[in-house]
Amino acid sequence: MPGIGRRSAERLAFHLLKADEPKAMALARAIADVKRAVKHCSVCSNLTDADPCPICEDSGRDRSRVLVVEQPKDLIALEQTGMYRGLYHVLMGRLSPLDGIGPGELTVAELMARLDTPAKNPGAVRIEEVILGLNPTLEGDGTGLYLAEEVRKRGVRVSRLARGLPTGAQLEYVSKAVLADAIEGRREMQ
Amino acid sequence: MPGIGRRSAERLAFHLLKADEPKAMALARAIADVKRAVKHCSVCSNLTDADPCPICEDSGRDRSRVLVVEQPKDLIALEQTGMYRGLYHVLMGRLSPLDGIGPGELTVAELMARLDTPAKNPGAVRIEEVILGLNPTLEGDGTGLYLAEEVRKRGVRVSRLARGLPTGAQLEYVSKAVLADAIEGRREMQ
Repeated sequence: MPGIGRRSAERLAFHLLKADEPKAMALARAIADVKRAVKHCSVCSNLTDADPCPICEDSGRDRSRVLVVEQPKDLIALEQTGMYRGLYHVLMGRLSPLDGIGPGELTVAELMARLDTPAKNPGAVRIEEVILGLNPTLEGDGTGLYLAEEVRKRGVRVSRLARGLPTGAQLEYVSKAVLADAIEGRREMQ
Repeated sequence: MPGIGRRSAERLAFHLLKADEPKAMALARAIADVKRAVKHCSVCSNLTDADPCPICEDSGRDRSRVLVVEQPKDLIALEQTGMYRGLYHVLMGRLSPLDGIGPGELTVAELMARLDTPAKNPGAVRIEEVILGLNPTLEGDGTGLYLAEEVRKRGVRVSRLARGLPTGAQLEYVSKAVLADAIEGRREMQ
């Protein structure tokens, strides 16, 4: 398990052996329950205990926009900003040809189905904008270029999250690549 | 001196006392020379040994654009990207009312003079765009808002460096403020 080495594993095992039976059983049951109850949403692939997930079910959200992320934890981070009121689509990874991860290993077909067949999108609303919220890394960018082409073929607008200076940073300490993005993407002030 | 504590200072002093005379004198002369030779450019306030500085003198640059930065080291960082071919203006700080730093303590009047009187800008070229390259901090933003208003009064376009995800970052680890900027500033992909 991540973050648990030989020593920690030993300590945990002995702790469970010393614990009274109901406590150990409660943990066993909690693990079994979580595996049984938490599924992927059949629409957006986010982790959920209801299907479709509460976000897809929320009729107060703008269902004509879909923000595409790599992992459920990216969705959680974006959702916590409170700045976005559309739907999501979780790719469950990114394209990585060297590791044998192509579009078939991700939920690309499910995303395209939502674009092609409005009935597959919550509320049967036609998707008008796909926002790419992939990591600003080499593989994230590659995945973004591939998706942008596929989405545009379908006549749907594609945008991506802004790239530039992170709020709170100091110009003199950020990398050249970040400064280049910041110059290239500069915005008129209203 | 920054980064030199009591111990380092002692070590340096003893090193100079042990060094042969010509070496110590060479260092003394170098320090005196640098203070004599390096001045602020009378146009952009950048550090330079010639006045105007080589950037202001370079007729190959686009003299209708001025990128405003807080410090000479910000200018150096932006210049190293090779992405910008216009001129600069160094404010020599930022507005900070609590520390008693107002527009009078900065080179704001010099910037406005360059806008008002093309003859004061290299090549007597009229400035058409002011790009604010201040630090993405509270004080930097405050300074930016003040300058934007002053520049706009003169009918000149104002833009600012892009704010958003820093290249190479992971969505799940960046702050909420950065994610909010990234959503708010998202860009259509061509």
